[in-house]
Amino acid sequence: MEPRLHIVTLGVADLERSYQFYHHGLGFPTTRKPESGIIFFQTGGACLALYPADKLAEDVAPDFPSARSRFSGVTLAYVARSKDEVRDILALAARIGGKLEKPAQDLFWGGYGGYFSDPDGHLWEVAYSDAWKFQPDGALVIE
Amino acid sequence: MEPRLHIVTLGVADLERSYQFYHHGLGFPTTRKPESGIIFFQTGGACLALYPADKLAEDVAPDFPSARSRFSGVTLAYVARSKDEVRDILALAARIGGKLEKPAQDLFWGGYGGYFSDPDGHLWEVAYSDAWKFQPDGALVIE
Repeated sequence: MEPRLHIVTLGVADLERSYQFYHHGLGFPTTRKPESGIIFFQTGGACLALYPADKLAEDVAPDFPSARSRFSGVTLAYVARSKDEVRDILALAARIGGKLEKPAQDLFWGGYGGYFSDPDGHLWEVAYSDAWKFQPDGALVIE
Repeated sequence: MEPRLHIVTLGVADLERSYQFYHHGLGFPTTRKPESGIIFFQTGGACLALYPADKLAEDVAPDFPSARSRFSGVTLAYVARSKDEVRDILALAARIGGKLEKPAQDLFWGGYGGYFSDPDGHLWEVAYSDAWKFQPDGALVIE
């Protein structure tokens, strides 16, 4: 197995609403439309996909429960280039139908950031730290 | 906001157990040890992180519920290079403490694959399709 995460799929209640949020709201590029039944975004090395949550559960197994708690146990993180970008993205997310879960603030590990949730409650951390270094293609340097 | 997903963090009940599963079991490289409190794996363009689930919920907000349902509403996907690799990875995952959720099989969209869950129930699809193309660095071509 290569050390690679190819696709992260978020189960959503309303594909049109989530498409609006991610594509028109956050600006994630895609050639797909909600009519295609699934949306793929190329997100720099990994792919973010949106798929109806009930179908996603069914894709795992026919009898797999589709009920979800508020906490998924999974968070997605976007590492911003500045504190201003952190604040801008959190404000943008709240404006387009997301929810501000944690206002931008100094963090215990030395960074600065906050959380928003998307229309289905999927959690995104938006953080900045001058300790994070980027690769030329924009990916993080992980040490 | 750049279209980028930098980090996917999985909340885990036992960091040592999950470290064993991902690092020694699946072979994901990292320089971190469970003692550091968080594990980062460089997974080709995105970073996969492991962090105690209760602390992850608390990181969102002090009163954020940490209880989780069986279905997180999020799946991670690994795109294999062959049907054999699909079968090998599912068998490996089951051998090292994961659970086979869906045996390898022909899929409705033309691919071949199955699902395993990690020790905390996080869902991984392992799939192959000759319709998927890879970029030179190993990432998927998303159209």
